[in-house]
Amino acid sequence: MTPDVLFLVDATAAAPIEVSPHDPALTVTQLAATRGDGIFETIVVVHGVPQAMRAHLDRFARSARMLDLPAPDLDAWEAVIQAAADRMRAHPRAAIKYVLSRGDEAGENATMGWVLGFVSPPRQAGPIRVVTLDRGYRSDVAQTSPWLLQGAKTLSYALNMAALREARRRGADDVVFVSTDGLVLEGPNSTVIARVGDTFVTPPVDLGILPGTTQHDAFVVLAAAGHATAVRTVTVDELRDADALWLCSSTRGAAAVSHLDGVERSTDDDITALIATGLDARKA
Amino acid sequence: MTPDVLFLVDATAAAPIEVSPHDPALTVTQLAATRGDGIFETIVVVHGVPQAMRAHLDRFARSARMLDLPAPDLDAWEAVIQAAADRMRAHPRAAIKYVLSRGDEAGENATMGWVLGFVSPPRQAGPIRVVTLDRGYRSDVAQTSPWLLQGAKTLSYALNMAALREARRRGADDVVFVSTDGLVLEGPNSTVIARVGDTFVTPPVDLGILPGTTQHDAFVVLAAAGHATAVRTVTVDELRDADALWLCSSTRGAAAVSHLDGVERSTDDDITALIATGLDARKA
Repeated sequence: MTPDVLFLVDATAAAPIEVSPHDPALTVTQLAATRGDGIFETIVVVHGVPQAMRAHLDRFARSARMLDLPAPDLDAWEAVIQAAADRMRAHPRAAIKYVLSRGDEAGENATMGWVLGFVSPPRQAGPIRVVTLDRGYRSDVAQTSPWLLQGAKTLSYALNMAALREARRRGADDVVFVSTDGLVLEGPNSTVIARVGDTFVTPPVDLGILPGTTQHDAFVVLAAAGHATAVRTVTVDELRDADALWLCSSTRGAAAVSHLDGVERSTDDDITALIATGLDARKA
Repeated sequence: MTPDVLFLVDATAAAPIEVSPHDPALTVTQLAATRGDGIFETIVVVHGVPQAMRAHLDRFARSARMLDLPAPDLDAWEAVIQAAADRMRAHPRAAIKYVLSRGDEAGENATMGWVLGFVSPPRQAGPIRVVTLDRGYRSDVAQTSPWLLQGAKTLSYALNMAALREARRRGADDVVFVSTDGLVLEGPNSTVIARVGDTFVTPPVDLGILPGTTQHDAFVVLAAAGHATAVRTVTVDELRDADALWLCSSTRGAAAVSHLDGVERSTDDDITALIATGLDARKA
């Protein structure tokens, strides 16, 4: 994605500075770049209105806690995000990514952040092909070993990018990670929804996965339309046998899964359309 | 660490550009900073002579392969590293960190690198307190699930930094990661050596750990002095019962372990001194 708007913020996010997103803004000793040591969120902006603003800010604060970063002042961050969104009001669909880095290892180590706007975010068209990949962890690892940072949205995404390359090698578009004890986790940058009979299910965050902001809003849409939803563990066998599957993320909404591990599967186009309409109708 | 010398290099490393290490050099869309998607090495420089140059370059190439990055031209990288080292010839002890990032996600995605020199690297004085921490993975995960990138030296180090914070919370200085099946792995930025009777042992890289350049040179020193060395799996129980332990890394050499999980343990000061002398006597 080519960025269009950039604000740099200090530890408090109180005094944003607008700079060109095409010029260097980070030293090579910035811990975001040396250690992937920071957190981020990406949100969609519709005609200048950020979607699910508070849910993303809450998750940002949650990630900060998990990484022992100073608690971000969410009101200050919201103001900067809104300032970036205002610049993109003319565009029907834009995206904002915001980042908090632990700071510069050469300096006094004060946290630093940035808010980056994209007027033309990519949108995945049509159903996607997905493969399951071993995440290597038991499903209880977030409880037993919090230093593994499972469930935090960190900048250390090399593994997620490697998993997506492995998916492409297998002729697929995306990944569902699976725990060593056979439970469905999440995608590298998405949340899983499965329709099992009449119920829409998604795995719980205590498996060490991110709380899905788009999945949450999709469940609100589904519930409003009279559908049953449940947050519960899903086994790999249940995933294969599900009546329909979606991967949810901010930039592409709820993407229908057409193939799982090379096997074509049924989709539920009415529900895909219902969720898309509901997500588009959101206000910030 | 405060940097003193910085060269930026393009995908080929053929045309280094020297810039101030204190000025911004990276865009916020640089994949090193957005995804921790790159690799690095850190080496010690003695009066302008990089130590274990080729071993680090070989590991750099290995990490590039594991991340599907273009193979770095090692001769070109060596020339840039030597240029940085030459600038620090007046200093008895310096360090160089070199990095290859996948590129800028906003651009044509060509890889980019940098070579950073520090004239005053920190040196850990005296023995260290270490805790064992669960790495969450089985010992065979590098074989079964290569997309987890175990054994690659990537920029995605948030987990390693979190583990070091957990060590400090427990009153310790460093960490030894342990697999879920009870085998000793490595530290967040070090390699384990244990003396078991008359033999010095270190775990094998097929457990998904980095080949230790300093551990390798320490084994050369030990063998030259007539000691037996072995690369083999080490259980956590063997670690606790070992006659002496060291954590090896480029910047601090072989650091003796004085406490493991809060329990004071015997050290072997003669061997610690032997290794230190041997490492100091290395040529590039």
